[in-house]
Amino acid sequence: MSETTLVTAAILVIGDEILSGRTKDKNIGYIAEYLTAVGIDLREVRIVPDDEDEIVTAVRVLSGRYTYLFTTGGIGPTHDDITADCIAKAAGVGIDHDPRAVAMLRERFPNPADLNEARLRMARIPFGAELIDNPISRAPGFMLGNIIVMAGVPSIMQAMFENVLPRLKTGTKLLAQSIDSGGRPEGAYASGLGAVQKAFEGVIIGSYPSFDGKRFQNQIVVRARDEVLLKAAAEAVQAMLDGLPPQA
Amino acid sequence: MSETTLVTAAILVIGDEILSGRTKDKNIGYIAEYLTAVGIDLREVRIVPDDEDEIVTAVRVLSGRYTYLFTTGGIGPTHDDITADCIAKAAGVGIDHDPRAVAMLRERFPNPADLNEARLRMARIPFGAELIDNPISRAPGFMLGNIIVMAGVPSIMQAMFENVLPRLKTGTKLLAQSIDSGGRPEGAYASGLGAVQKAFEGVIIGSYPSFDGKRFQNQIVVRARDEVLLKAAAEAVQAMLDGLPPQA
Repeated sequence: MSETTLVTAAILVIGDEILSGRTKDKNIGYIAEYLTAVGIDLREVRIVPDDEDEIVTAVRVLSGRYTYLFTTGGIGPTHDDITADCIAKAAGVGIDHDPRAVAMLRERFPNPADLNEARLRMARIPFGAELIDNPISRAPGFMLGNIIVMAGVPSIMQAMFENVLPRLKTGTKLLAQSIDSGGRPEGAYASGLGAVQKAFEGVIIGSYPSFDGKRFQNQIVVRARDEVLLKAAAEAVQAMLDGLPPQA
Repeated sequence: MSETTLVTAAILVIGDEILSGRTKDKNIGYIAEYLTAVGIDLREVRIVPDDEDEIVTAVRVLSGRYTYLFTTGGIGPTHDDITADCIAKAAGVGIDHDPRAVAMLRERFPNPADLNEARLRMARIPFGAELIDNPISRAPGFMLGNIIVMAGVPSIMQAMFENVLPRLKTGTKLLAQSIDSGGRPEGAYASGLGAVQKAFEGVIIGSYPSFDGKRFQNQIVVRARDEVLLKAAAEAVQAMLDGLPPQA
């Protein structure tokens, strides 16, 4: 079996508007799917309000526990945008207007009168951070140590995410194979599936029901980092399903 | 000013399938919007994998910190459904087949052969919990102390959520008023908005940009529990916007 490398991550979503339900988050699912595809395991997500103590605590805990921490939200020009300052505080470094970020904003606001104090707030970058280019509205994200700070607006977040990905290390991909239960309810195969799970260490087997308002459809998902092991476990699941008594 | 009552909440989403990006969560936004409407402040959300230690730790932390903790996911019949046992462990109580829950499952599975061991797992309820009716597939959710345990399938979660809401205490609603910036970019009003925020203690003012691929639209949201204060702050925001120099 080839050597496996584990790279882990957490997401911290920052913003009152997500917790109030006013804005529906679209970033978690996007980042989750992308990270899985490149071989980074998303292990935890937290959503916290625009509150310094809450943000600083979550940044410290999550950046200490995982290979990478991705944050979204709170890097605009208004008073409720406090992410950059919170990251600096969490990391114990200073923060000031970054000449590289100011230059990016000057391209967007060539008239000096337009580059007011509020907009210059978006050029406040913690000391030692690398910038992440924002092709849409120029105000950059940044990466400080293992913390990747991105905008909350989905299209900008996605552009920043693609720009930062090549700088990150990735691990052995967690491969997945889906097996439809063929109309069988979870309760009919749960015992057999548990037995297959016990027989295959290093394989993660999950059963995921969905309900369309009339009936359930169940997908069994087998996941492993080793292709041979994945195939063997998936075949065992299919054999278990095929061996069940006919449905009533 | 009338007396305000604060009731707070957290959501814990349990499931590998959300973290892998395979399933996109639809429950957080639904619960968030609903809680805001009834006067419960959602303060934090966490998403954790199907891992006992992770679940137990998060349940302990979040149920200790907020008035209510809502969990979604992990209460089906398969081996990866470990939520009920984790809740019992976190609360330090026993767990066993609950006669009331078994009776509910018997209605769905009148043939004793169908009510197998795996399905009976769904009747495992921590000691002391009240059941939450599930009109769709009968296997109940439950409420143990301040912890509300619901299914992950959105339609079932929503039914359980509506069933449990009448049992919960609610606080003074956080009222909100949205003000469109009238095409003005955030950077043009950020300084004025910060001044309004400073002048209105007890009011929460946020600025929320969205981007349609061509241009930004900005909504300023003023939130307060007192209607008079809300109205005054919203008027101050509108006056500030009206006083800005004409746009180029």
